[in-house]
Parts: sequence; structure tokens; C-alpha cells
Amino acid sequence: MDTNAIKKLLRDVKAGRISEDEALSHLKGLPFEDLGFAHVDHHRILRRGFPEVILCEGKTVEQIVAISQRIVAEGNPLLATRATAQQAEAIQKVIPEAEYNPTARTVVARTRGRRKRGRVTQKGTILVISAGTSDIPVAEEAAVTAEAMDNSVERVYDVGVAGIHRLLAHREKLEAAHVIIVVAGMEGALPSVVAGLVGVPVIAVPSSVGYGASFRGLAALLSMLNSCSPNVCVVNIDNGFGAGYLASVMNRL
Amino acid sequence: MDTNAIKKLLRDVKAGRISEDEALSHLKGLPFEDLGFAHVDHHRILRRGFPEVILCEGKTVEQIVAISQRIVAEGNPLLATRATAQQAEAIQKVIPEAEYNPTARTVVARTRGRRKRGRVTQKGTILVISAGTSDIPVAEEAAVTAEAMDNSVERVYDVGVAGIHRLLAHREKLEAAHVIIVVAGMEGALPSVVAGLVGVPVIAVPSSVGYGASFRGLAALLSMLNSCSPNVCVVNIDNGFGAGYLASVMNRL
Amino acid sequence: MDTNAIKKLLRDVKAGRISEDEALSHLKGLPFEDLGFAHVDHHRILRRGFPEVILCEGKTVEQIVAISQRIVAEGNPLLATRATAQQAEAIQKVIPEAEYNPTARTVVARTRGRRKRGRVTQKGTILVISAGTSDIPVAEEAAVTAEAMDNSVERVYDVGVAGIHRLLAHREKLEAAHVIIVVAGMEGALPSVVAGLVGVPVIAVPSSVGYGASFRGLAALLSMLNSCSPNVCVVNIDNGFGAGYLASVMNRL
Amino acid sequence: MDTNAIKKLLRDVKAGRISEDEALSHLKGLPFEDLGFAHVDHHRILRRGFPEVILCEGKTVEQIVAISQRIVAEGNPLLATRATAQQAEAIQKVIPEAEYNPTARTVVARTRGRRKRGRVTQKGTILVISAGTSDIPVAEEAAVTAEAMDNSVERVYDVGVAGIHRLLAHREKLEAAHVIIVVAGMEGALPSVVAGLVGVPVIAVPSSVGYGASFRGLAALLSMLNSCSPNVCVVNIDNGFGAGYLASVMNRL
Amino acid sequence: MDTNAIKKLLRDVKAGRISEDEALSHLKGLPFEDLGFAHVDHHRILRRGFPEVILCEGKTVEQIVAISQRIVAEGNPLLATRATAQQAEAIQKVIPEAEYNPTARTVVARTRGRRKRGRVTQKGTILVISAGTSDIPVAEEAAVTAEAMDNSVERVYDVGVAGIHRLLAHREKLEAAHVIIVVAGMEGALPSVVAGLVGVPVIAVPSSVGYGASFRGLAALLSMLNSCSPNVCVVNIDNGFGAGYLASVMNRL
Amino acid sequence: MDTNAIKKLLRDVKAGRISEDEALSHLKGLPFEDLGFAHVDHHRILRRGFPEVILCEGKTVEQIVAISQRIVAEGNPLLATRATAQQAEAIQKVIPEAEYNPTARTVVARTRGRRKRGRVTQKGTILVISAGTSDIPVAEEAAVTAEAMDNSVERVYDVGVAGIHRLLAHREKLEAAHVIIVVAGMEGALPSVVAGLVGVPVIAVPSSVGYGASFRGLAALLSMLNSCSPNVCVVNIDNGFGAGYLASVMNRL
Amino acid sequence: MDTNAIKKLLRDVKAGRISEDEALSHLKGLPFEDLGFAHVDHHRILRRGFPEVILCEGKTVEQIVAISQRIVAEGNPLLATRATAQQAEAIQKVIPEAEYNPTARTVVARTRGRRKRGRVTQKGTILVISAGTSDIPVAEEAAVTAEAMDNSVERVYDVGVAGIHRLLAHREKLEAAHVIIVVAGMEGALPSVVAGLVGVPVIAVPSSVGYGASFRGLAALLSMLNSCSPNVCVVNIDNGFGAGYLASVMNRL
Amino acid sequence: MDTNAIKKLLRDVKAGRISEDEALSHLKGLPFEDLGFAHVDHHRILRRGFPEVILCEGKTVEQIVAISQRIVAEGNPLLATRATAQQAEAIQKVIPEAEYNPTARTVVARTRGRRKRGRVTQKGTILVISAGTSDIPVAEEAAVTAEAMDNSVERVYDVGVAGIHRLLAHREKLEAAHVIIVVAGMEGALPSVVAGLVGVPVIAVPSSVGYGASFRGLAALLSMLNSCSPNVCVVNIDNGFGAGYLASVMNRL
Repeated sequence: MDTNAIKKLLRDVKAGRISEDEALSHLKGLPFEDLGFAHVDHHRILRRGFPEVILCEGKTVEQIVAISQRIVAEGNPLLATRATAQQAEAIQKVIPEAEYNPTARTVVARTRGRRKRGRVTQKGTILVISAGTSDIPVAEEAAVTAEAMDNSVERVYDVGVAGIHRLLAHREKLEAAHVIIVVAGMEGALPSVVAGLVGVPVIAVPSSVGYGASFRGLAALLSMLNSCSPNVCVVNIDNGFGAGYLASVMNRL
Repeated sequence: MDTNAIKKLLRDVKAGRISEDEALSHLKGLPFEDLGFAHVDHHRILRRGFPEVILCEGKTVEQIVAISQRIVAEGNPLLATRATAQQAEAIQKVIPEAEYNPTARTVVARTRGRRKRGRVTQKGTILVISAGTSDIPVAEEAAVTAEAMDNSVERVYDVGVAGIHRLLAHREKLEAAHVIIVVAGMEGALPSVVAGLVGVPVIAVPSSVGYGASFRGLAALLSMLNSCSPNVCVVNIDNGFGAGYLASVMNRL
Repeated sequence: MDTNAIKKLLRDVKAGRISEDEALSHLKGLPFEDLGFAHVDHHRILRRGFPEVILCEGKTVEQIVAISQRIVAEGNPLLATRATAQQAEAIQKVIPEAEYNPTARTVVARTRGRRKRGRVTQKGTILVISAGTSDIPVAEEAAVTAEAMDNSVERVYDVGVAGIHRLLAHREKLEAAHVIIVVAGMEGALPSVVAGLVGVPVIAVPSSVGYGASFRGLAALLSMLNSCSPNVCVVNIDNGFGAGYLASVMNRL
Repeated sequence: MDTNAIKKLLRDVKAGRISEDEALSHLKGLPFEDLGFAHVDHHRILRRGFPEVILCEGKTVEQIVAISQRIVAEGNPLLATRATAQQAEAIQKVIPEAEYNPTARTVVARTRGRRKRGRVTQKGTILVISAGTSDIPVAEEAAVTAEAMDNSVERVYDVGVAGIHRLLAHREKLEAAHVIIVVAGMEGALPSVVAGLVGVPVIAVPSSVGYGASFRGLAALLSMLNSCSPNVCVVNIDNGFGAGYLASVMNRL
Repeated sequence: MDTNAIKKLLRDVKAGRISEDEALSHLKGLPFEDLGFAHVDHHRILRRGFPEVILCEGKTVEQIVAISQRIVAEGNPLLATRATAQQAEAIQKVIPEAEYNPTARTVVARTRGRRKRGRVTQKGTILVISAGTSDIPVAEEAAVTAEAMDNSVERVYDVGVAGIHRLLAHREKLEAAHVIIVVAGMEGALPSVVAGLVGVPVIAVPSSVGYGASFRGLAALLSMLNSCSPNVCVVNIDNGFGAGYLASVMNRL
Repeated sequence: MDTNAIKKLLRDVKAGRISEDEALSHLKGLPFEDLGFAHVDHHRILRRGFPEVILCEGKTVEQIVAISQRIVAEGNPLLATRATAQQAEAIQKVIPEAEYNPTARTVVARTRGRRKRGRVTQKGTILVISAGTSDIPVAEEAAVTAEAMDNSVERVYDVGVAGIHRLLAHREKLEAAHVIIVVAGMEGALPSVVAGLVGVPVIAVPSSVGYGASFRGLAALLSMLNSCSPNVCVVNIDNGFGAGYLASVMNRL
Repeated sequence: MDTNAIKKLLRDVKAGRISEDEALSHLKGLPFEDLGFAHVDHHRILRRGFPEVILCEGKTVEQIVAISQRIVAEGNPLLATRATAQQAEAIQKVIPEAEYNPTARTVVARTRGRRKRGRVTQKGTILVISAGTSDIPVAEEAAVTAEAMDNSVERVYDVGVAGIHRLLAHREKLEAAHVIIVVAGMEGALPSVVAGLVGVPVIAVPSSVGYGASFRGLAALLSMLNSCSPNVCVVNIDNGFGAGYLASVMNRL
Repeated sequence: MDTNAIKKLLRDVKAGRISEDEALSHLKGLPFEDLGFAHVDHHRILRRGFPEVILCEGKTVEQIVAISQRIVAEGNPLLATRATAQQAEAIQKVIPEAEYNPTARTVVARTRGRRKRGRVTQKGTILVISAGTSDIPVAEEAAVTAEAMDNSVERVYDVGVAGIHRLLAHREKLEAAHVIIVVAGMEGALPSVVAGLVGVPVIAVPSSVGYGASFRGLAALLSMLNSCSPNVCVVNIDNGFGAGYLASVMNRL
């Protein structure tokens, strides 16, 4: 509903091309659809560059299926996160081309156009690093999200600071990346170390991997927020999706 | 046990109409019933305008049924919250007119009088808003509670701040409401935004929807307590019942 | 920017009464003033019933004085909270009729109209209760705010639960009140007890009075959020202003 | 190992009644039994007035049964807390007179002497109060513990502050009690109110009853620690056993 | 306002000895005095065994002096805690016999009767133990409070668990005590060790002594709440007054 | 110390152009300078694109001056943050061209080259938004940092969610920005709302503005971490510097 | 990759014994193996004295088996912790000599050399103490780890501070130990008491044993961090493995 | 008070060499001195290898001086930590050879014997590393403590993970150290990285350096407790003294 659209509308009213009530309706008409339990935001792809994404946790299967159908019906690509196998199957029943990744817990259905022209259209590479093997599900959520948004993604897993040489051995990948996502639980030290080696943005994702005083990711979260490397920013604990999305937004810059 | 009752009692003693011991007994006689495991507070409807409500969590089925029966036997309306399907069924066995709402997890049995004269007797409208689809169970607990207390209730769901235009499209409902309840998890920002648009009280209900650093609703709770809009007040995390009750109390003013 | 205003504007454009650009400017024209360091929100009184209030903490004296002047210049009443004596003096230099209350730490300047027609125009009484003597500054902030918004205010101070009979002795005031504000630090139990005695909304204000495990008001805050009386709502620790404002909004219902 | 015992030992050494090594062995000999996984402290009844009590949580059935047998074999009364039905049955197989209380989750086996002379030997009465119905399991753990330690116990349940008159109606019991235990979850306000009415010690037990910002009893715990009534002391969340034990120790004074 | 008083009142009304209104006034007449900023609770000494105590923190000098005067005027003993030297001096100006203890930060003025009959009237001894030298101010607050309430008090300071033999050397005092108060900061382990050695109640007072992860007494508080010795109860951090008061209440049993 | 440098070094050794020891020294030679109390990292500008920045908090004036001199001596631009007026003066004595910004608390000394070719060399615009007037110091720290790193910066201050129209009025600036920094204290809701309106990265900076349950910025921090807008990332509380630095790194992409 | 190795490499390059590319490869060649989901760090035994240990929690059975096989294939001893019975069985299928300890939840496979020369090669004894019976699983994890690393281990279990004489009876073992590990939940006081009796390092392991305000080991953790005995250091809650490993590292000194 | 001493005492009693009462007195006679406010533990040097150390915080100047004098009078070395300049001066007045280190805030007075034979008698070297310049005071407290206990100490300061090459350049010192102390604030990542490079114990000291979500060292503390390197143990925030003491204890092994 930008300036030009309003100007055009006013011109149309002035010229009698549309009635006063029609104009009012347009001015108020908003690009969402009210399903009762959800306001599906169809114009989000215009406003933000990618359509609404479904966080499956806390929604019923019926709600997930209904929202998925409306997104696909509008010709938008579908991304559903934190999907259980059962939720994924329910989506696949109505959207057969949807792909389920059980490690990342994602369901992805690309639009026909995207499927045709290939996966990668963004220029830079997004590097996804995990500190440990147990962090891989979160790292994969990030990687799959970035791929669903047409980015080229590299993965380097299990290179935590207890054996820093494992990380240093991947220095070329570090230097080639446009944006780096680092997933780490426990002490969450890896993003600071990585960020100290590069000049690009590092998105730190604390994972809930650990026990005791990790307090389900709080230790890693605080560690990352206090990074002495200023090119680090942080997203929520286990928020692989947010990291992948944000990396894609940065990669578009 | 107000001034006039005491005066009357004293006059009766003076006149010899009742004995000293009877008077003492009246002065101490209190309008509750001791079931051993519960003191059912029958005069609460006089003192507070609505009878005692049963929070089912933490009670045995036997306790819930016994308290329900005593409330209904006194001619009072029944509201039980956080009821499982099994608990609801047990109540319905002894109080067949009781209705179970599985989303809100409430059991409601209206008194005959209320059932006859229709549901709504309060004048203003209570608007219940949810930020997301996953917040609906809490929002419904609020809505059902307000309806059980004879209020007219409007619902607007899934209009969180990530797409603020979805909220703005409901501006007329916002402006028509007497009291507004806003349920939000995650960052809990919606009540502040809503309250900035209206001049009526906004009851903010943090929900435990979210993960990681939402700390089961703590993030939303703190956010709401720090609202920069001064017409916001807050109830406990997931306390839809409290919000609906309080909204009804305000609507009665 | 409601429906009728837009309709009228559209009619004016259609009729050629105003140009397309003027209409655009109106549609975008927003009732605030940009001072660089502050966007003073002059239409807040229309939208919300009371103008913007200045929280002095964290602002420079120059900023406070400039914002105060702009509010008064628009013919709006002035309320500044958390004002030091020095900040109050600086305001009084440019707005001589402003009154400073050192206990409540408020500066109030009423508009001429309000000064003429007397202080109280709202019908119900707001009762402000404090648990202890040390809670009085917060209680006074609430009371002064409610008075600045044209309400009749009663005060009952130092009636905490360690001597419940002191509270019960004020039962008539409790029963006469339209809205009750209860300020309590330490264990924060008083709002629950008060709310159990009445049928009106109780706004609970945790105060930072206490030491050790009071954690600067956290204990009282949690206590109030978990009140077993459903007619209690809570505002931020030490937020007397918010409580007074909210009570006034409720009293207007 | 007090002064007189040492003196006697020294005299025996001097007189040649016992050898140097025997004396050394006595000086080091300690009244416990090492089962490998447990050091059963048989002299605790002498030192502290009641034998070791078994907290079943975190122990295997085999460990619980073995420790129980050793306690009973020494002629000491048995008290096991937080016992599941399965654990209780295992104890009962080897100690048939042991009684299981499923609400309190306790197993009690009194010594023959105690069984003969009747249950109550302490003079004062211990009053156990619960704020709600859901607090009863913790309250019962306290009551059963105090009874196992030969105290007379009174119970008053479900008299929370939302209906303070229910508590006031039991004023005589309050005034007759020697020690009072108050169990409350949610806002935990009841101990302060009770303590304000009496001159005896009040043992406050926060329960984990509640949800959201009760943080599993933390809100009640903090509330009780900040009680403005100085005759309140606090034990751990849900620690009915500790409260009952402590009340008995006080009752013995 | 007990049963007998009411019965007597009713008899007087019946006999015409007092009028209905006088009776009403008595029934409502409550033994406190409203100073505006404080409700001084004169009958607390009857109800609870000791008059109201003034917590000086958070009160103005004027308020402290006025409340002190009213307490003394009623013939009650005065105890003011957390008093600064300046506050103490102000009290001493109007109550010359008041004594200030700068370590305990207390002001005490005994009634003439108490001064005459000597300090100690309670039979048992209260033992106050501190873990370190820095805990002495809190320990002294406890000791002075207990002495003001007519108890015999013993002190053993600086016997923390890092040199457990220092504590064991005082075993006779431990065994002679009726009630034991243990003040400890840092890890707060001392109360558990002391309680394991005796059969009387141990009141644990966490102090804010420590740094870093002591979190101003939180570590000691949690440690004490989790004591494996069941004869331990806990009061607020640095709450020497509460411990001394409670010990006196127990000593009276 | 990348692959090519090592290859070249090896070739030089092979060719006898440098001795074995010289090569070793190069391989170990690291581009920092050890001042005893600090290892100044001179090659950071090569590795990361900007030299080491001095956080003045916690350092002595002597340390700050010495590190500043070494940075400038290497021909690198100087940025010192959290500088007091006294620290700034000390720097200016030895580096006269250094500029102190008392609101942002920064000291900046640009290299001659940068001063000549003008301030802005990055193409996109960084927009810095503050929710309130009290957030300006943090916002300015971000803005000054981004400017010191050669970016074009726009500022929009005091547009918090309590009057959302103030933000919406700046929609064109929002849409023109390459990267957006949003500083907010209290409930920290603004970044979510801003991020919902744009398709670029939003760097959320929680500020410690607020009181009570803001817990010095914790409420805002949690709120931002739980943002329902996935293009939001978060830095430490009050970390304006980190936000400005990160925005610049993104702007360079 | 130490100085001498580099010097040697450079000499070989100079002498033409190896090519430039081979040298580069060696300089970059790192002693780990990339399995995709894990970088197995084979040289850790050289660098740190013991090979990589597998934390089974959070890994799939397939991942655990694959990593185990690679470790054993390199001739290194295997230690896997937090293994479920199912995970242990899967390892035993491919490594039949692996032993599962269900209490400690460890899987150990010693190398042939170690098996031949017997278990103990380190000189000092490591003493593992537990405060209660429920702490044994964590204590056993520590003991098994230390044994797997060729240490002689003594165990003393269930000697908590509630009966300090049980600990004192083991004084000779305390004095004979080279390093002491103390596992304690609840109030976590035992390490301080033990450390006060000895002159060797005490490794404190907080366990999650307890309930309520133990907050899953937080109380014990804080208690141990604040120990007034300076020869105490602390590891993560329930981290028996870390304690055993660290004790072995110290024992090697 | 070991076995042999008791045996000898018993023999003396038997032989009539000492009386029964003398023996009793010896058995109870404990090697401490009771100053009223402190129990100075003179035999701690025998039991633990180093005499009692004075933590000056929270003690009065008079107490510090008196304890210092008693320690020195017993011929023991003096170490006082967290000493202000004023406290140090007071000690120096009575113990002129005492040295004050204002950075470490320590006062040290070595015994004549120690002064003669030179400072270092322990064989291994203790390496003290700090992440930043602001961590130096804590690092120095550790270094001075270790030196006062006759250890050789190396220092490497300001080598945090944001420029990991600065640390790697000191690899030889890392490999030569017997025990390593690492002090770090903010994200506290350095100990994990250091520990990954060596095979000796690493004592991690979280410092309170940082702001915002460092929560005065909590972030660093949690980070260190969750270290993925198992040769890391942790002491309290800012506890340089404990780290130095513990390192010395380990170095003695």
C-alpha cells in the first residue's frame, strides 16, 4: 500500500473510474486471507521476499494442512519447520511434491518455476558449521531453509573448539563464504573463534545440546551474545530456520 | 457479615429474639461448606459476583466431581478449567447439561435462569485477540470464561506483529471493544501495539508458545510487564481464565 | 485515520475540493512532531484519552523541558514521572503552574479548563492501598496519576497481611471503590487478600521494597502473577504510574 | 563421642581394663553400617531423636529394601518418603507391618513399643493447613511424618487467601496449635496471613502447585521467604517431610 | 476479638449496659492507630507476644521517630532494625534510653518493667553461630533481637566448614542449646553440618557475604533450602532479625 | 598465513632466497604487538576489514592511551567505545585529531586517507531507529561506529510501538535502507514490527532502558530473541558498537 | 605441528627430499578423519594423552557405532558415556570386547596393550566420594572413567554432611588419596568439608539429585563454586566423566 | 589429630606420664585461636599445606590487622586478598615487610625462611593466561597467590579468541606449563580452546568483565562449566586467589 498505489487510487476516484466505496475497499483491502484460526499473509513474499513459513509446533494437523494448501494455491513456495513425520505425511497427501527431511524436520515444496530453473540463484555461498554431531539437526534446518530460498550452501560439521585444528583445516571454505552460520551447544564458543578468522557476518545459533549447567542452550546463548568478535549476531536457541532465513536475506544484499 | 447484619443481630439479642449462643454462632457462621479436602465457598457469588471456579489440574476426578456437584446444588453456575476429556466426562455423568470445550479445556454448566434469559447480559463487547494460531487454546479459555459470565465476545486470531497490517485491518473491532484481551507467546509484542491503538484496558496474556529463549512464556511475560503502553495489565502465563474473568469484572463497571 | 475520515477525503478529492497531493499529504499526515530526539505524539489524547506522559528517567533536562513545552503548547495537560527535584525545577521555570510532588516524584500541570472545572470528573472512586510505609512513594505515584486524570482517589496505607485486621477495618472503603490499586513489596500477598474481599478489578503493583530474596520486587511480582484471586492483574515493579493510568482507563468504562 | 565417654575410656586404658588398640578402635568406632551403596546411620536416633529416613526418589528398589531392613533390624521405626506403590510393596514384602499412604506417598513401620503405647506422646498439637485441594499430598506427607514421630496432628485443608473467611472460621484451631505447618502453592501468601494471627512458629512449605510464572513453586518459595511476619520459617518446595520433622522437633522443646 | 470478648459484649448489649452502636463500635474497634503513613499495630504484643518492630530501611527519619514514639507511648518495648547511625540518633533524641548497636544496626528500648527484672526470662539458651567473620553483623542482629525478647544468647563466630574442627570444639555449646541460629554466606554449608550434630531446631540464615556466583546470598539460600538435615528451616537472606525473633518464639514453646 | 603465502615461503626456502630460520620466523611471525598488558592485533584490518577497537571500560587510562597510540602508529583508524570524558581527553592529548562524541561515548580518529576521500564509501544506507529518547546513546554508538567504517547512516529516533503511526510515517526510509538497526529497551517489541515491514536484515539491540521487570535489558533481549520475524538477529544489551560494526560488515557484502 | 617438525619439513624441502606441494600438504595435513557427521580426532591421544571420548546423548546409534569403529581401528582405547543399553549393545556387536556398565552408563574397550599390562599404571590413588546413595551413578561414571585411564580408584559412598562422623571414619582414605572427587546433590556441602580436611585437589561434581529448590543441581553447583575451601574446583552438573578425566590428568602430573 | 598422636597420648596416659584431664584437654585441644570475631586456624598449614588466607572484603580494618598479626606471630606466611590500599597500609604498619600489589589487591608477607631460600621451590611452571586486558587484575591475583606459595609463574595476557593466532603464537609456553590458569570474561571461550591444545589441567576463572548479558560473569561461568574439553575445571567468578591456590596444590602433586 505504497505512495504510488494510493496516488493511482485517488486518480481513479477523481476520474470516476472507480466508486468511492470501491476505493475505500481497496484502501482497506489487505493481502491476507482469514481462515478463522489463521490469517495467511499472501503478500509477505512481496513485502519481505519470501512467503509465510509454517512453524508446525503447537498447530493441529488440520491447521497445518489448510495453511499449506492456501500458500501453495497462491503459487508460493512452501516451507514448514519442526514438522513431525505424521504432519509431513498429511501435507504430502495434499501436496505430493512436498519433500520431508527427517533430520531437519522440514517440509519443502518449491514452485514450478523454481523447480525448473534449478535450486541456486543467489550468488554468494552460505557456510553452515556445527560444533558437534548432535548439533546437526539444527544445522540442517538452517541449511535446508537457505536452500529453499535459492542459496548455495556448504556444510562443515563437528569442528568444535576442543580440537581447533579441525576448524583451521577448513580455512578455505571459511574464507570463501559470503555468510556463515555456526551452530553450537554446550559452551557455544565456536562462533567467536570462527568470527575472529573472517570478515563476513557470522550468525550464531545456540543449540540446546548439552546437560546440567547448559540449561537447555542458555549457556551457549549467553556465550554468543557476549562474543568479543563484533561480526557475530545471535538468533534464538535451536532456531536453525531463522539463521537460514537471515543468511539468505543477507546473501541477497 | 456487613454492618447492618451485625446491627440486626444485636437488636435480636437485645430483644431476646435469639439467644446469646445463637448469635455467636451466626457471627461465626460462614457461608462455606467443608468437604474435608475442600472448603467450597458458596457466598463467593455474593461477595465477588461469580461463584468459585474449579481449576482441575492437580485435583483427582473424585474431588472435581464432588465440588462440581456442591456448586450446582447451591444453584450456582459451574465453570471448570484445564479439564481433560476424562475429567469432563466424569462431570457430565452427574451434571448432564455441562458442556465440554476441548480446545479451551473448559466445562460449563449454566443455571436454568441464565440458560433461559440467553447468554449475554453485560453491555460492552470483549475482544479476544491471539498473535498466532498456537495461542488459540489460551484465547479460547478466555473467551469461554467471559461468555460463561454473560458477556458478548468477539474473536480475532493470528494477527501477530510480523504482519502488522493484519491487525490494522481489524481496527473497527478494536475501536468498538469495551475491554481487549491479547494472547501472545514468543516475543509477546502484540499487547503493546494493540494498546497503542485504543483507549480501553488491554489485558495481556503471555502464552507458553515458543521455544528456546521463550523459556515457556517468560519472554512474553517480561515483554508485557514492560509495555510502554500504560493501558496494559498482565496476568499469569497461559491464564486465559483469569483474563476472561477480569475482563468480565471490568465490563461490569 | 478512520473510515469516515477516509470517505470524506475521497469525496473531497472527487469533488476537486482538494488536490491529489493534498489528499496524499493528509492520508500520510500524522499528528506528531519530530524534535529529533523525540516524536511528540499530540493526538494521543484523541486516540487514547490522555496525552503522552514523560518518563524522566534516562532523559536529559533539556529533552524533558523541550517535550514538556511542546505538550503544554498543544493545550494538553502535562504529567512527568520519576522526576528529580532538579528536573522538576527546570520544568517549573518554563511552566510555572507545574506542581512537583517529591514523594511521588511527579510534575503535573493541568490545562486551564481542567483547573477551572475542578479536579474530579470521573464518577467512581479509585482506592489506593499500600502494604507498608515504604511502599508509599509508589502508591503516591499511582494516586497522583489517577488524580491528574480527573479521578477521585482514596488512600489507605500500611495495612499489610501481618496484621490483617488493619485491612478488614477499612472494609467499607474496599466495598465502595470502583477500582482498587494495591502496592506491596516483600511477599506481595496483599492484592490476593484484597481481591478475595471485593468484586471489582484489583491492579497489583509489586514494589521493590524488601531485601535479600525479594530480588528487588521479583518475589512480589511472581506472587501477584500467581494470585488465586482471578480479579487481579499486574503491572511492572514500582510502576505506580501505570497502575494509576490503568485505573483511570477502567474508571472511564 | 562426648567428654564423659572419652574420660571413661581413658580411665579404662589407665587401669589396663582395655588395651591401647581396643581404645583406639572405640575412639574411631562409629555407629553406622556400611552397605557399600549406603552408610546406614544407626545412632542418629540418639544424636537427633529420630532414626534415618529414606528418601525413595533416586534409589533402586533393592537399595530401599536393604536399607529398610537394616533400620528395622536395629529396632528403629521406619519412615520412607516419596515412595511409589511398587517401592512400598517391595518394603511390605519384607516388613509386613509397614503401612503405605498413597496420598502422602509414605511407608511407615512403627516399633513394637510405639505400637503398644499408642501413637501420641508429644504434648502440643501440630496444625497442618493447606491453601488448596491440590496441596493435600504435600500436607499429608507433613502430617504423616509428624504422626510417625508421635505427635497429635490436626488438619485444615483448602482455606486459601482468596476466601480469607474460611481461614478465620478455624481461628480456634489456630490458637490452640503448638506449631503450625502451612502448605501453599501459587502465590504462597497463606503462611504470612496465618502467622499474623498467632504467636507460635509457622513452618511454610511452598508447593509446586500452579503453572506459568509459579515456576514449579519458586513464586511461593520467594513469597514465603519474604514474609513480613517474623514467625515464619521456610523449607524446600514440596518438602512436607521436612516440615513434619521440624514441627516435631519444635514440639519436643 | 476472641469468643469470650464477643460473648461478654453480647451480654452487655442484652443487659442494656451498652448501646447497640457502642457494641458495634467495639466489634469494629481495632487495636491500631492510623498515623496516615502507618497503621501502628498496638495489640500485636497480645496477639503475637511481641510488639511491632520497625524495619528502618525505606522509611524517612520522621516516620521512624513518629512510629517509635507511639510504640513506646503504649508502654511497649522498642526494636528498630537496619538503622543507620543518623536514624538511631534521631530516635535517641526523643527516647533517650534507646541503645544503638552499630554492628547489628539495631535500636532497642526496653520497657521499665523489663529493665528492672533483668534481661533473661526465657529458660532455654539460643546459640548464634557464624561461619565467618564477615557474617557477624547479621549474627549480631539475630542475637540482639533474641536478647531484646528476653532470651539468654550464646555466640560462636567464625567456625565455617573449611576447618570443621573449630566447630567440633564447641560441641558442648551445641548440645546445650535449645535453638540454634546459623548464619553463613558463600556456600552456606554450615547449617547442614550443625544440624547433623544436634536434635534441636536449626534456623539457617543465608548471608550476602561472598562474591561472583554467590549472587548476593542466593547460593547460600539454595544450599540451606536443600539441606539434607531435616531439622533445618530457612529465613530470608541477611534476615538476622527474623531468625532471632523466630528462635525466641520457639524458645517460648 | 594463507596457502599462497606458505607456498611462496617454501619456494623462497628452496631457492635459498631466505634461510631456514628466517622462514620459521615468518611462519611464526604474527601480526600483533605485545605490550605486556595487551596484544595489539595489527593485521586485524586485513583479516576482518577493520582494525581492533578499544572497549575503554575496565582499562586504565594509561592502557587506553598506549593501545591507541600503537593503532594510529600503524596507520590504522582509531575507534574507542565506552570512553569517559577523562579517557577521551587523555587520548586527544596524544592524538589531537581524535573526536569525542559524549552521547555515544566514542573517540574516533580517521586515517589521513579516509579524511581526504570523505566519509562514505559503502553504497547502501544503514538506518538506525530508536524506540525511545532514552535509547539514543546506544543508537548513537551504533551510528558513529557505522560512520567510522565509512557507511552512510540515517537516524529515526523515538518511534516506539505505543504510537505505531510514528514509525509508519517513516516507511520510505525503512524501504530505502540496506540494513536496519533497531534499539529498544522495555518490552523490546520494535524490531519485530520493523522487520515485519521490510525485506532486509534487522539488527536488534536491546537497551537497558527501563526499570523493574526489565531487569536491565533482559526483557528486551528475550523479546528480540523470540521475534516472530525471521529477518531479525540480536546483539548484546546496549551493544551499539557491535550493531554498527555488524551492519557495516553486512553493507559490504 | 611444533617448531622442530616445521624445521625438519623446511630442511626436506630445501634438500629437495619432498616437493613443495607435499610439504604444503603436510603443513595442512591434520590428524583427523571426516565422516561427514563427525571429525574424529585421532591425534588427540598424542596432544592430550587420551583419545576422543563419545558422549552418546544426542547421537544416533549409527553415528555412535561408526565413530567407535574408527577409534578402535586406529588402535585407541574406547570410552563412550551416557550410553543406553541399546546403544551399548550396538557397539558390542561390532566391538565384542567392549564392556557396558549400566550404573555408570559407560562402554569401555581397552586396547590389547592395556589389557595385557593390567589396569593401573598411574601411581597415586583417586578417591571417589558420594554424598548419598542416589549420587552413585554419577560417581561411578567418574570412577569408571578414571579406571579406563589406568588409575587406581577407591570409592566411599553415602557419607553426606547430615552425619559427618561417617565421613570422618574414612579419614585415612582421605589422607591417602592423590586426588579426590566428591559427588553431591541437594545442598552440595560435602566437597567443602572434605577439602577442609586434606591438602590435595578436590574436584566437586554437583549432581542433579534433589527436588524443588535444588533446581536440578543448580543449588549444589552454586554451593560448590562458593566453597570457602580454596582447593576445590568444579565441573558441570552430573559430569562424572569430566571429573574422572580431570582427576586422571592431575594424577599424571 | 591422627592415629599415631592418639596412640602416643594413650600410652602416656597408661604410663601415668600425663593425667587423665591433661589427655582430655589434648584430645580436645584444637590448633586454633579464638579472637572472638575469628577462629584463626594455625594448624591449617599442616593439614592443608598453606596457612589461612584473609579475604579482606567484609572485614573491618581492625579485624584484618588482628588476624594478620596472629598469623605472622605463629611464624606463618601471610596472604591477604581483595585488600584496599587503606587496609594494606594498616597491615604494613604492624608488619612492615608486607608487600601490597595494587593491581592484584594482595598483601603478602613471606616468612624469613622463605625469603632466604628464594621464591620458587615447586618444580613445574604455572601459566596464567588472560583473555583481555581488563581481566588482568584477576589474573594477577592468581599469579601472586601462586608465587606466594613458592611456584614459578609465567604470564600471557590479552590473547582472547577474537584473534586466535595471538594464542597460538605462545604454543611453546602452553606446552611447557604444568598447570594452566585461564581468566576470561564476556563469552569465556578461551579455556576450552586452550584446553584443547594441551594435556595438563586447565583452571578456568570466569571474570566479571563484560556488560549486558554477561550478567557480571555468569555468561563466562556457564560457558566454562559446559566446556567440551574435559581437562577444564572451574572456580568462582573473579576468584583469582582460588585458581592460584589450586594450581599450587596441583603443582605439588
